[in-house]
Amino acid sequence: MGSLNEIAIAAGINISSALGFLLAFAILRIQPINDRVYFPKWYLKGTRSSPRHIGAGFSKFVNADLSTYLRFLNWMPAALQMPEPELIEHAGLDAAVYVRIYLLGLKIFVPIALLAFIVLVPVNWSSGTLEHEKDLNYDEIDKLSISNLGKGSKRFWIHIGMAYVFTFWTFYVLFHEYKVITTMRLRFLANQSRRPDQFTVLVRNVPPDPDETVSEHVEHFFAVNHRDHYLSHQIVYNANALAGLVEKKKGLKNWLVYYENQHAHNPAKKPTMKTGLWGLWGRKVDAIEYYKAEIEELCKQVLEDVERQKVMSDPNAIMPAAFVSFKSQWGAAVCAQTQQTSNPTVWLTQWAPEPRDVYWPNLAIPFVELSVRRLIISVALFFLTFFFMIPIAFVQSLANLDEIERLLPFLKPIIERNSLKSVIQGFLPGIALKIFLILLPMFLMTMSKMEGHISISGLDRRTASTYFMFLFVNVFLGSVITGTAFQQLDSFIHQPANKIPETVGESIPMKATFFITYVMVDGWAGIAAEVLRLKPLVMFHIKNTFLVRTEQDRQQAMDPGSLDFGTTEPRIQLYFLLGLVYAVVTPILLPFIIVFFSLAYLVFRHQIINVYNQQYESGALFWPDVQTRLIAALIVSQILLLGLLSTQEAEKSTVALLPLPVLTIWFHYVCKGRFEPAYVKFPLQEAMVKDTLQRANDPTLSLREYLKDAYVHPVFQKDDMYELVTMDEEKNPTVATKRQSRMNTPVESKFNSSVGTDEGEFSRMHPA
Amino acid sequence: MGSLNEIAIAAGINISSALGFLLAFAILRIQPINDRVYFPKWYLKGTRSSPRHIGAGFSKFVNADLSTYLRFLNWMPAALQMPEPELIEHAGLDAAVYVRIYLLGLKIFVPIALLAFIVLVPVNWSSGTLEHEKDLNYDEIDKLSISNLGKGSKRFWIHIGMAYVFTFWTFYVLFHEYKVITTMRLRFLANQSRRPDQFTVLVRNVPPDPDETVSEHVEHFFAVNHRDHYLSHQIVYNANALAGLVEKKKGLKNWLVYYENQHAHNPAKKPTMKTGLWGLWGRKVDAIEYYKAEIEELCKQVLEDVERQKVMSDPNAIMPAAFVSFKSQWGAAVCAQTQQTSNPTVWLTQWAPEPRDVYWPNLAIPFVELSVRRLIISVALFFLTFFFMIPIAFVQSLANLDEIERLLPFLKPIIERNSLKSVIQGFLPGIALKIFLILLPMFLMTMSKMEGHISISGLDRRTASTYFMFLFVNVFLGSVITGTAFQQLDSFIHQPANKIPETVGESIPMKATFFITYVMVDGWAGIAAEVLRLKPLVMFHIKNTFLVRTEQDRQQAMDPGSLDFGTTEPRIQLYFLLGLVYAVVTPILLPFIIVFFSLAYLVFRHQIINVYNQQYESGALFWPDVQTRLIAALIVSQILLLGLLSTQEAEKSTVALLPLPVLTIWFHYVCKGRFEPAYVKFPLQEAMVKDTLQRANDPTLSLREYLKDAYVHPVFQKDDMYELVTMDEEKNPTVATKRQSRMNTPVESKFNSSVGTDEGEFSRMHPA
Repeated sequence: MGSLNEIAIAAGINISSALGFLLAFAILRIQPINDRVYFPKWYLKGTRSSPRHIGAGFSKFVNADLSTYLRFLNWMPAALQMPEPELIEHAGLDAAVYVRIYLLGLKIFVPIALLAFIVLVPVNWSSGTLEHEKDLNYDEIDKLSISNLGKGSKRFWIHIGMAYVFTFWTFYVLFHEYKVITTMRLRFLANQSRRPDQFTVLVRNVPPDPDETVSEHVEHFFAVNHRDHYLSHQIVYNANALAGLVEKKKGLKNWLVYYENQHAHNPAKKPTMKTGLWGLWGRKVDAIEYYKAEIEELCKQVLEDVERQKVMSDPNAIMPAAFVSFKSQWGAAVCAQTQQTSNPTVWLTQWAPEPRDVYWPNLAIPFVELSVRRLIISVALFFLTFFFMIPIAFVQSLANLDEIERLLPFLKPIIERNSLKSVIQGFLPGIALKIFLILLPMFLMTMSKMEGHISISGLDRRTASTYFMFLFVNVFLGSVITGTAFQQLDSFIHQPANKIPETVGESIPMKATFFITYVMVDGWAGIAAEVLRLKPLVMFHIKNTFLVRTEQDRQQAMDPGSLDFGTTEPRIQLYFLLGLVYAVVTPILLPFIIVFFSLAYLVFRHQIINVYNQQYESGALFWPDVQTRLIAALIVSQILLLGLLSTQEAEKSTVALLPLPVLTIWFHYVCKGRFEPAYVKFPLQEAMVKDTLQRANDPTLSLREYLKDAYVHPVFQKDDMYELVTMDEEKNPTVATKRQSRMNTPVESKFNSSVGTDEGEFSRMHPA
Repeated sequence: MGSLNEIAIAAGINISSALGFLLAFAILRIQPINDRVYFPKWYLKGTRSSPRHIGAGFSKFVNADLSTYLRFLNWMPAALQMPEPELIEHAGLDAAVYVRIYLLGLKIFVPIALLAFIVLVPVNWSSGTLEHEKDLNYDEIDKLSISNLGKGSKRFWIHIGMAYVFTFWTFYVLFHEYKVITTMRLRFLANQSRRPDQFTVLVRNVPPDPDETVSEHVEHFFAVNHRDHYLSHQIVYNANALAGLVEKKKGLKNWLVYYENQHAHNPAKKPTMKTGLWGLWGRKVDAIEYYKAEIEELCKQVLEDVERQKVMSDPNAIMPAAFVSFKSQWGAAVCAQTQQTSNPTVWLTQWAPEPRDVYWPNLAIPFVELSVRRLIISVALFFLTFFFMIPIAFVQSLANLDEIERLLPFLKPIIERNSLKSVIQGFLPGIALKIFLILLPMFLMTMSKMEGHISISGLDRRTASTYFMFLFVNVFLGSVITGTAFQQLDSFIHQPANKIPETVGESIPMKATFFITYVMVDGWAGIAAEVLRLKPLVMFHIKNTFLVRTEQDRQQAMDPGSLDFGTTEPRIQLYFLLGLVYAVVTPILLPFIIVFFSLAYLVFRHQIINVYNQQYESGALFWPDVQTRLIAALIVSQILLLGLLSTQEAEKSTVALLPLPVLTIWFHYVCKGRFEPAYVKFPLQEAMVKDTLQRANDPTLSLREYLKDAYVHPVFQKDDMYELVTMDEEKNPTVATKRQSRMNTPVESKFNSSVGTDEGEFSRMHPA
C-alpha cells in the first residue's frame, strides 16, 4: 500500500498531465483552422459558418487575437450554462440523460463522502491499532481506513450503521433519478412533433405463404386483425449487397477527388497510377480516367441491382419483415404491445425503432435461429470473459524470438539485428494485450450484432452490459485478487461459498492505493484526452488537405462522432462500483472519484453541446440498464463488506448486514415495477391524447403520404449514389447543414414505387 | 444399503397394503349407500340419481348382487375408456391436463428404463469391482448401480453418453408435450361457448379521484381511452364482512336442522340446549326456537349490510377495482395486454379470471403494499423452508416430561401415571412433526393469499411452487445428506462450490434403497388411499345421519372435492426428480416409479371422471410451472451426476457433462419463448375470429344484458341467504344438480341495481 506521499506524487503527475491536455485543448479550440473539429455540432445545425471566411491570410488559420488566450478556460462555465430543456432540444434526450449519469455520481458520492469524512475517518484514525503493532508495515492511508480498527473492535458497528445510511441514501437518489428520467422521457415523447416511428410497428417473422407475396400477406393480415386501425406498410428489402456497393463507390470517389485535386494543383502533370494491389503493381493508367470509369461501372451495377429489386423478380431480395403503419398512435400502441397469433414465433410485433436507429441486416432472422445465436454468443461471451488470456498468451509466446526463428528461419537475419530484437521482446507482449483491449468493444459489438438485435441503440445497450461484465471480472476482481480471470474462476469454484466474499473483501482495503491511481490515470487523464479529440483532429486535417474541394466536402470531412454508449457507460459504472465498495472501507478514495465525476460532467456536457452528433435518439431507453448495473454494484459492495467484516472477528456483523442485499434486491424489483414499463410499453392514454391533439391541429394531413417512405433502407434514400451525376445541381451548402433533420424525416426517394406499398399499389407492383 | 431381498420384502408389504386399499375401495364403491361418495360428479351433472330409490329394504344400503363382486376391478378399464375430448368436456381442461402429467411420467421413464436395463445394468453388473474388494459390505443392488464401476473406469463414458441420450429424450418429450398442451389450450379456448371472462378485463388500483366515484371514474377513463370498444363495468364491493355473516348463518342453520331432526324422531320431547360456551353453560332454552331467532336476527343484519352498500353511503364498501367489459373479445384482448397510463402502478389491467376463480379479498391491495408483502413472504418462506425445525424442536422439547412438571407442578399427579407418560414420550415428538407436515400446505396457501394473488388458480400455482421448494430441500436433499435443512444450508455455505454437487452426488447411490421404499410407501400406498376417500366417506355418513332431510340436503352433504393442485403436483415432481437423478446412477429405481405413474394415472383418471368437481377452470394455466419444475429437476440431476463422477476419478467427465446444464437452460428459454405466450397473452387473431363467428351466430344478443351480473361477489349471488324464507318454494331437486352450470353462468341476482352498472344507470345510482 502506498503512503499518502506517494499518492500525492501520483496525483501531481496525473493532475499536470490532465492540465496539459486541457491547456492544449484550450489553445487548439480557438484556432480557426480547428473550428470544425471542436464545434461540428453547430455546423451541422447550420448556425455556425466557417470563421475562415471572415479573417484573411494568416489569421484564417491561426488565432492572433491575444485576448482570447486570456479567456482560454471560459468553455467550462459555458458548458454549464445551457439549461437542460434547451440541451434536450439541442442534443437529444439520450445525450442529456447520459451526462446526468455523471451528475448522479456526484449526487450519490458528495454526501456520502462528507458523512464518511465526518464520521468514519475520525473513527478509523483514532483507533490506532496499527500504531501499537510495531512489527507491521503501515502507511498513513491505512490509518484512515477500516484496517486501523483491530480485530473484533466494537467500532465496526459504526461502519455497519454507515453501510445502512449509505445504502438508503443511494436508494433515495436512485429512486428519485429514475423518477425524474422517466418523467423526462414521457414528456419528451409527448412533446415530440409527429414522427414516423410513433405510428409504425415492426413486424418480424412473417410466415411464408404459398399463394401470396410477403407484401400481400402482411396487408391482408393486418387489414383483418386491425381492421379499424391499419393504414399501410413497407416491406423490407435485403439491401445489404447494395449497401456494400455504395460503400465501395464512396471509397473510389475519394480517390477520384484526390487525383483531381492533384491535377488542379499541378495542371501540367496528369496524375497516373498502377491498377494492381495497393497501386504497387500493374499497368500504369491515367488515374482520373480510371476512377471515373470504375465509378460509372459501379453506378451501373447499383442501378441494375435496384432495378432487379424494383420488379421483385428475385424473392431473396424481400425479407419476411415489414414496417406496418397505423392510422393512429393508439392503433400502433395496441399492435406493438399485443400478441397477434397463437403461434408466438411468427408475426412478432414491436415498436419500430426510429428510422435511423434500425439495424437493417438483422431484421430477417428466424425465431429458432435467434435462440441458437443467443446460446452460442452467451457461451462465447463466457469464454471471452474468463479465458481471453489464452489466445493473448499464445500471441505473446510467438513474441518469443527463438521460437520465431525456429519456425521461420528465413527471418533470422532480420531478427538478429540488435535494435529490432529488443523492441520486439520489450513491447510485443504488452502490445498484444493493449491491442486486444482496444479492440475489445469492437469484438463485443460484433457479437451483439450476431445475437440479432434489431436497433443500433439495442446493440449499444447489449455491448455495454457485456463490456461491464468483462470490466467487472477482469479489471475489478482481477485487480483485487491478482491473477487471470480463469485462475479466479478456478479458485472460486474450489472455495466455499462464504469464503469468496471473505477472500475478496479481505484484500479490498489493500488495493485502495491501486484504485486511486487507476481513477487518476484512466479517469482524469482519459477525460482530459477526450476533450482534446486528437484522432478526429488529425483525420480532419488529413482529409482537409487531400480530399476537400467544396464546402460540402469539408462538411463531410468533419467527424463529429457521437457518444459511444457501449464503451463509456461501463467505465462509469466501474467508478460507481469503486465508490460504493470503498465508501465504508477506505473513504479517502471518494474525493478522487468525485473529481472524476465533476470533470467528466463538465467535459461531456461541453462535448454534447459542441461536438457530438447523435446517431439515433432512443429516448433514454438505456436508463433501466444503468439502474440495474448500479444496483448490482451496490449488492457487490454489500457482500464484500460482509466478507471483510467476517474476517475481522466481528461475527454478528454477518447477521446485521445480511438484510442489506435482500433489501437491495427488493428495491430493484420495486423500481422495475414502478418505472420500467415506461421504457417498454407505450401507455394508451398518452397515445389517445396525442391522437386527439394531432387530429385537431392538422386535420387535413395525409398520414399515408407522410409515412410513405419513412422506413426505406438508407441505401435507397441516400442521394449520394447519384451524386456523380447530380453533384453540380446541388450547389447550396446549406442543404447539407440540414443533415440531421434529413435523417429524421423521410426524404423523397427515387424508388417510391418499389418500396412504398399500400392498398392501391398492388396492381402497380408487377408492371407489364 | 438394502439387499434385493429386503427390497422385495418391503415391496411385498407395500403391494399388499395397496391391494388392501384397492380391495376395500372395490367393495365399498358398489354399495348403494356409498354411491354419493364415489360418484358425486355424476350427481352434480344430473345424470345419476340415487340407487336407493330403486331397491328396497336391505338392498337399499348393501349390494347383494354377488355378480358385481366378481367384477370388482372393472373400474380400471372403465377409467381408461373415456376418450380425451370427452374427458375435457366432462371434467374440464385443467383436470384432463393434470392426469397427462402422470402420462408424461410414463412417456419419459418407460423408454429410459428400457434403455437403462439394456445398456447400463449389464455394464454395471459385469464390472464386478465390488466383488473384488472383499472387505466391502455390498448388496446385490449395488452391483446393478454405478457404484460397481471402479474409480477411474473407462466405462463411465457409457454413463455419460446415456446421460446425453436421456436428456435429449426428455427434451423431445417435454417439447412435444408442451406443444400438445398448448394446442389443447388454444382449441379449448376457441371452442368454448361465450363466457363472461372472454369479454372482461380486471382493472385494479383505480386511482382516487376527488370529484368522481370509483364507478364514474372507471366509466370515464375507459369510455375515453377505449372509445370504440368499452361496453360496461362492474365495480367490486368489499363483501368480506358480509361473506362472514353468511358463513355464520350456515353454521346456525346446520344446528337448527339437527335439532329439528331430533324433534321429528322424537316428537314428544322438545330439544333443549344451553346458550353458553359449547352448550356447556348458561340458560336452558328451546333449541329450535333459539336458532330460528338467531337466524332471523342474522338475516336482518345481512339485509341491512346489503342495503347500506346498495345506497353506497359507505365509501369503504367500494374497492378501487372493477371488472370492465368490452363489446368484443378483440377489445378485451387489447386492454388486457396494454399499459393504460404512464404511471404503471395505477389502472393495472389483466384478463379477468373466471367468475368462480376470482379470489375476492385480494382485489384491492395497492401496488406498494403488494411489493412489501412479496418481500415479507419471500423472507418468511426462506425461514420456513430452512428453519422450520426450530419451532418443531421447541414443541418437542416441551414433550420432555420433566420440563413440564417443573413448569406446571400441578400437572404432576396426572403425568406420573405410567401409561400416559409412555404415550406422551413416545408419540408427542413424532406427532408434532407429523401435524406440521399435514398442515404445511395450508400454511403455504395462507402465505400465498397474503402475497396478494387475485385468482384461486394463481394461489394454487404459487402454493405448488413453494411446496416443491420445501419438498426439494427437506425431503430430497434432507434424505440424501442426513441432517436438517439448516445444517445443510450451513454446510453448503462453508463448502467450495464444486464440493456441493460432489457431496450430494456421492451419497446419491447409497440412498437408492431408501427412495425405493419412499416411492412404495408414499407413492403406491398414498395413491391407493386416495381412491378409497376415507375422510369424505366418513363425513358423508355423519352428515347423512344427522343433517339430511331433503334430497337437496343430501346433495349438499356430498363432498366431491377437487384436484388439489397445490399439494399433489409438487409430489409428482418429486418422483420426476428421483427418476431423472437415478436414471443413470441406479436404474433399478425406475420400475418402481413407472408403477407409481401407471397406478396414479389410472386412479386420478377414475377420480376426475367419477368424483372430483373442479372449483375453477384455468385452461391448463399451470403447465408452464410444471415444465419449469421438470427442467429444474433435469438440471439438478445433471449437476449431481457431474458431482458424482468427479469423485470417481473420471476427470474428463466434468468437461463432457458441462454442456448438459447449459443446453438444458437454453432449451428452457426456447420452450418459454415458443409456448409460454399462449398462457399469458391472448392472440388478437383468435379474438377477431371468435368475434366474427359470434356476431354471425348470434347477431341479436345483448352483450350488456349478458354480462350484467357476471362479476358479482358470490355472496350477492348465492340465493341461500334467503333459503330460510324460500326453502319450501324450491322443491325440485334437479335445480341443485345444475350447480356447476350455475357457477359458470351468471344468475339473476337480487341486487342488480346495486352492482350492475353501465352508462344508463348512473342517474339511477343515487335514488332520491
